[in-house]
Amino acid sequence: MTNALLDKVSARITPGPDERAGLEEMADCIISLIDRTALNKGLPEVKGILVGSAARDTWISGEHDLDIFIMFPAETSEKDLKSAGLDIAKEVSREADCFEERYAEHPYIHAFFKEFEVDLVPSFRVASAASIKSAVDRTPFHNQFVLSKIGGLEPDVLLLKQFMKGAEVYGSDLKTGGFSGYLAELLIINYGAFHEVVKAADEWKPGTVIDIAGHGSKEHTDPLVVVDPTDPERNVAAALTVEKFARFIDAARKYLESPSLELFFPPPVLPLGDLEFNQIMAGRGTSLVAVVFDKPDIVDDILYPQMFMLHKSMRDMVERHGFLVYYGEVWAGKRSASIVLEMLVRTLPSVKIHFGPPVWAKQHAVDFEAKHGSGGGFTGVYIRDGKLAVDVQRKYTDAAELINGELLNCRLGKHIGVNIKAGFKVLNDQELLQINDESFRKFLRIFLKKTDVGHNHPH
Amino acid sequence: MTNALLDKVSARITPGPDERAGLEEMADCIISLIDRTALNKGLPEVKGILVGSAARDTWISGEHDLDIFIMFPAETSEKDLKSAGLDIAKEVSREADCFEERYAEHPYIHAFFKEFEVDLVPSFRVASAASIKSAVDRTPFHNQFVLSKIGGLEPDVLLLKQFMKGAEVYGSDLKTGGFSGYLAELLIINYGAFHEVVKAADEWKPGTVIDIAGHGSKEHTDPLVVVDPTDPERNVAAALTVEKFARFIDAARKYLESPSLELFFPPPVLPLGDLEFNQIMAGRGTSLVAVVFDKPDIVDDILYPQMFMLHKSMRDMVERHGFLVYYGEVWAGKRSASIVLEMLVRTLPSVKIHFGPPVWAKQHAVDFEAKHGSGGGFTGVYIRDGKLAVDVQRKYTDAAELINGELLNCRLGKHIGVNIKAGFKVLNDQELLQINDESFRKFLRIFLKKTDVGHNHPH
Repeated sequence: MTNALLDKVSARITPGPDERAGLEEMADCIISLIDRTALNKGLPEVKGILVGSAARDTWISGEHDLDIFIMFPAETSEKDLKSAGLDIAKEVSREADCFEERYAEHPYIHAFFKEFEVDLVPSFRVASAASIKSAVDRTPFHNQFVLSKIGGLEPDVLLLKQFMKGAEVYGSDLKTGGFSGYLAELLIINYGAFHEVVKAADEWKPGTVIDIAGHGSKEHTDPLVVVDPTDPERNVAAALTVEKFARFIDAARKYLESPSLELFFPPPVLPLGDLEFNQIMAGRGTSLVAVVFDKPDIVDDILYPQMFMLHKSMRDMVERHGFLVYYGEVWAGKRSASIVLEMLVRTLPSVKIHFGPPVWAKQHAVDFEAKHGSGGGFTGVYIRDGKLAVDVQRKYTDAAELINGELLNCRLGKHIGVNIKAGFKVLNDQELLQINDESFRKFLRIFLKKTDVGHNHPH
Repeated sequence: MTNALLDKVSARITPGPDERAGLEEMADCIISLIDRTALNKGLPEVKGILVGSAARDTWISGEHDLDIFIMFPAETSEKDLKSAGLDIAKEVSREADCFEERYAEHPYIHAFFKEFEVDLVPSFRVASAASIKSAVDRTPFHNQFVLSKIGGLEPDVLLLKQFMKGAEVYGSDLKTGGFSGYLAELLIINYGAFHEVVKAADEWKPGTVIDIAGHGSKEHTDPLVVVDPTDPERNVAAALTVEKFARFIDAARKYLESPSLELFFPPPVLPLGDLEFNQIMAGRGTSLVAVVFDKPDIVDDILYPQMFMLHKSMRDMVERHGFLVYYGEVWAGKRSASIVLEMLVRTLPSVKIHFGPPVWAKQHAVDFEAKHGSGGGFTGVYIRDGKLAVDVQRKYTDAAELINGELLNCRLGKHIGVNIKAGFKVLNDQELLQINDESFRKFLRIFLKKTDVGHNHPH
């Protein structure tokens, strides 16, 4: 199926001959460098290979990511792989503009070669996906599988990836919780075309299972299960959250109803200005509370789980104290990070009921009377629903004060914890405008106007 | 067991010889009047009998309640009992200062003879409690049972009744939900003395069963089960609420810890003055909302169930709309009645989340988008937890406005409903002081200071 809209999208996202030649040239150059370096180190069997979307011709114009694996014989020891692999990767990266060591299951090198972002990943050349020694060893098998099936479908993969980007569901990183490139390729292989994927997604429900190889051997509880053709136990969509699953279905439905270029290329979100912020807040009548701290210098896949954990812990604490949260979200900019809560009820009266044991739990009841009977509260001890109770002074009548006073008792991830212990600020309402960051102002627009996936545009 | 405190209480509550003689004289006089009237109507087998505490010498000085039954032969038809019974009662009441017809299972007459309040109740003289034809027929059997066991224990019954009055748990009417006089007598018969009842109550737990006749034949779920010695299926304590059960235990414990005259004769509750009201409210920081309407002219046993039902229905409505209630209570004075709520959160922001179906419930999702997608809310349609949602304007941002606007949609009992439909007012905070009634001001003190049972006095 072709149509004018998709042709237009394809024209914008398909790499041209020069761009493709540039990428191939860079890949070839790095791979030969790896091979030569290995040879010089007396490791003639160690070879570089290109994997990922660059190897499969399923990359979108403008993306310059190269995944290059440094393949060691399967019989190499873990220790040798780590040391020799990293040695070779570092030596190769001497030609790069800059590079850093990163860690997944094993260390690898992330390097910039001109405009290209290159991952140099040591890996075992195992006989089959079933005998992999670490998670990255699976990648060459994914590569083989996709290459064997994708011929002619590459343009549809590009359309699907761009559509997923437009819907903000592309990326299986922990921040996004969306669809990986490999998952997009498998969906195209399974359904045969971009339009068929979208038509299918319109009917998806949690529990949908796609098993191309027909060999799935494990139950999964994820909203979408796409059995890895190279591993019957693995769900390629395991990282996909319910939220992103729902967003994709919603975007698919909107596309089928009324296809538009904007679904692929949503207009940029504009930073929220002071005036508009004040107008929106006056209309909503809620109150905002934000805790702001220095962003730790760590990759997103380490940062975001800590942000999400703190958000949940903070929100639970605030609600345990009786305040009502309307919505909450995490934000991280270049230097600062923040958890923002929109409060339905930010302040509560001074009085708080403090329940004791049931009257008939004799010893506990006597102890409670002894502790609270002598006054100090708003009332003496009384009986409510068969339990002893007393009206006491609420410790925190403002959720912002609560957060200020008790944030250190929330669940703090390692890196975030260090920075928060060094200092944090709690900002309310207009004070949030002090966060001097364009990306924060964009975040605020989405936070307050919910102008996200497929809903940017009133229809 | 005797002691100085109990002797002092007994001295205050035991009727003196003159008081007793006056009551006996009045009872005899009314009974002979009944017998004569019946004879004149050609019903020589119909006889008046005295039942209740007056018949058992278990009435407290100052009480002038006479329960007089007009006993018909068991073979009398229902119809004849009703008409002839009421005829006799009315004729006898011509000697009263005033009287009115009241209704339980059957009609009866409530009359004032000088300082005595007299119930004249037609009843069947059945062979055993097992063959009773209506609930009141049981009373003569209660009378027989108590008279056969109570000899010598009457002073303890008086002490227990007075203690229960002090704890505000005396009375099995629907307003109080406490202990009946018969129940107090049975407790004394079972435990043998006032002090033993109190010692036992200190250890009571929900599910406590007392079965004097050892013939209980039915499971009950009430907090306290006292099997009727005249009816194995009946729980004499069925009307006792968990709250009053707990209060009695609590009062018993306080008595054992530190016996005092005040537990029997609590100081009167003082009406709450304007100044104190304002101070208390400023301290608590809550907001009061009261709905006030004309009290229907009905007996408490009809009124209070309707008040409780309205209270629950109003409170459920207010909470369903997201407001937070701290406490609520019903009040009825001579002319007005009111439901009072103390609000932890009386006002809420304009914005409200309106959830739609999950995105994957296709047709419902499409309908929701069609209905809410075109704007009108604070946001477009967005996705939250896999469901469609939209931020809309909250209809009522103030619980007082909600009650004002939707009270007629609450569950309104028959009589209350008529009066509320005729008109009601919703008062907030200081406006409550407009209710010009001393009993309301006393109610307010208890409502706000919880100076109830055994807790009147800081200790």
